[in-house]
Amino acid sequence: MDFYSVLLENLIIILGTSSFAVSGAFAAMQKRLDAFGVLIVAFVAAVGGGTLRDLMIGDIPVFWIKEPYYVVIIIITALLAMFFWKRLKRFKIILFLSDSLGLGFFTILGLQKGLALHLDAGICIALGLVTGCFGGISRDILLNNIPIIFRKEIYATACIVGGLAYFALYYAGLDKNLTEVLSIGVIVLIRIIAVKKHLALPRFY
Amino acid sequence: MDFYSVLLENLIIILGTSSFAVSGAFAAMQKRLDAFGVLIVAFVAAVGGGTLRDLMIGDIPVFWIKEPYYVVIIIITALLAMFFWKRLKRFKIILFLSDSLGLGFFTILGLQKGLALHLDAGICIALGLVTGCFGGISRDILLNNIPIIFRKEIYATACIVGGLAYFALYYAGLDKNLTEVLSIGVIVLIRIIAVKKHLALPRFY
Amino acid sequence: MDFYSVLLENLIIILGTSSFAVSGAFAAMQKRLDAFGVLIVAFVAAVGGGTLRDLMIGDIPVFWIKEPYYVVIIIITALLAMFFWKRLKRFKIILFLSDSLGLGFFTILGLQKGLALHLDAGICIALGLVTGCFGGISRDILLNNIPIIFRKEIYATACIVGGLAYFALYYAGLDKNLTEVLSIGVIVLIRIIAVKKHLALPRFY
Repeated sequence: MDFYSVLLENLIIILGTSSFAVSGAFAAMQKRLDAFGVLIVAFVAAVGGGTLRDLMIGDIPVFWIKEPYYVVIIIITALLAMFFWKRLKRFKIILFLSDSLGLGFFTILGLQKGLALHLDAGICIALGLVTGCFGGISRDILLNNIPIIFRKEIYATACIVGGLAYFALYYAGLDKNLTEVLSIGVIVLIRIIAVKKHLALPRFY
Repeated sequence: MDFYSVLLENLIIILGTSSFAVSGAFAAMQKRLDAFGVLIVAFVAAVGGGTLRDLMIGDIPVFWIKEPYYVVIIIITALLAMFFWKRLKRFKIILFLSDSLGLGFFTILGLQKGLALHLDAGICIALGLVTGCFGGISRDILLNNIPIIFRKEIYATACIVGGLAYFALYYAGLDKNLTEVLSIGVIVLIRIIAVKKHLALPRFY
Repeated sequence: MDFYSVLLENLIIILGTSSFAVSGAFAAMQKRLDAFGVLIVAFVAAVGGGTLRDLMIGDIPVFWIKEPYYVVIIIITALLAMFFWKRLKRFKIILFLSDSLGLGFFTILGLQKGLALHLDAGICIALGLVTGCFGGISRDILLNNIPIIFRKEIYATACIVGGLAYFALYYAGLDKNLTEVLSIGVIVLIRIIAVKKHLALPRFY
């Protein structure tokens, strides 16, 4: 990869990780947890998905043990969230966009980890889903909430459709980088449309 | 194994997996989760136990990554549960029996995975217990309930007694297949008696 | 190690494991779980932290599968807690002290497992934290509580400070055994002071 794609990738990792961490920190602060609780929930929200993925495919030690800069990003983000939450809350749109970008990026990252192990397409999409969504699920379990992604606007569905798009483009013979960028785009786009139009999945019972 | 035992085993796997998945889907629908939430809770209820077992003994990638037909069974079951829940609910006895059969089968499967690694009898029984019960525990945690198996009729106890029966018969020199069938039978029988007679474990405090 | 340190170490393991198990058993009994539920919550409270640590660093099968005497200690403790809880509750100070000792010992044990794998100091401290605290977190999640260590007196902070003390003494060239004892002492001391003075971390929001 050339210099600019490496730079871009690292930028997305930082943006995605910190917006996941911010979602954890804010949720913990709303439940009046103490400073340590906020830090832990931010941490779990940010790395929970990738950790479960690594455990399940057996890629251990898990990623943030091998690449400790994730820990640094999360600690800084959690501290910023604790001290500047009033100001941060104003940037709702930026937080939403980096969360969506993080979701797209981590989903495709998880999917590619599955591909590298020659796993079935369905399993790769499931791994992408776990990577993108399990952090938020753990955050909500820790705070004694029913996971919001089971009830909110289309979230996990965006990951699944993005994963399907990846394989469609991949088998169509597209360039790997382009496939990546386009399927991340699909995920971000679905999230934006879902939130704007208040789309939700049907319920039963 | 001959053709009929393979057929029977696959039938039990399908029955057990789908009845575990149905228990997850119904519980999720009662909490008014959306379609994706129902699918995920069904998935976790069905594979949660085996996943934790595989993680703990280090048999990774976990079983459903290596044998993706589990995922197919669960998706089909969850869809059926969502569209035909009214009709399905009428077959309470069939659902209960396949759940008990699943419990028995998965418990002994977990126990045998431990045996194959030459682990202690107590640990093998614990692995059987995890395989049989952790799916239901995760389902309840995801839905913000205290796990029902901690409070309902004898459930986990059935797994433990079944596991003890397995070792008793095993050391008595019984044929492996017969040992398997009999100890699964013990578990199913205890479940039937417990539910019929409303048996429960004592509580304290 | 000489005979007395081995004896002391085993004593601390037994004390720490059983006081963690007692905390789980009591919490489960307060929520009116049945005998099996009490046993499982005691088990999870006692081994949850070390299990997650072993999974994340890839030291599998996890420790209590390889060293089944932990299971024996926990079963005995849970039975004692169920039958003698009235009498046990009177020994609050002894329970608190062995819990603190367990916290200190398990934290440093987790940290040293990281060191043996040549992991970064920050990651080692995180592993110590997970070992010491995740059992209590899982106990509270199973019982549908928000983890108490996110809201109570300084608890996790004690682990972090103890971990930092370990590295400070370690790099200062102190003898390994002394480093160990002193940093466990730091953790126990912080816990005692925090509970006596009702110290707590600041909250936000």
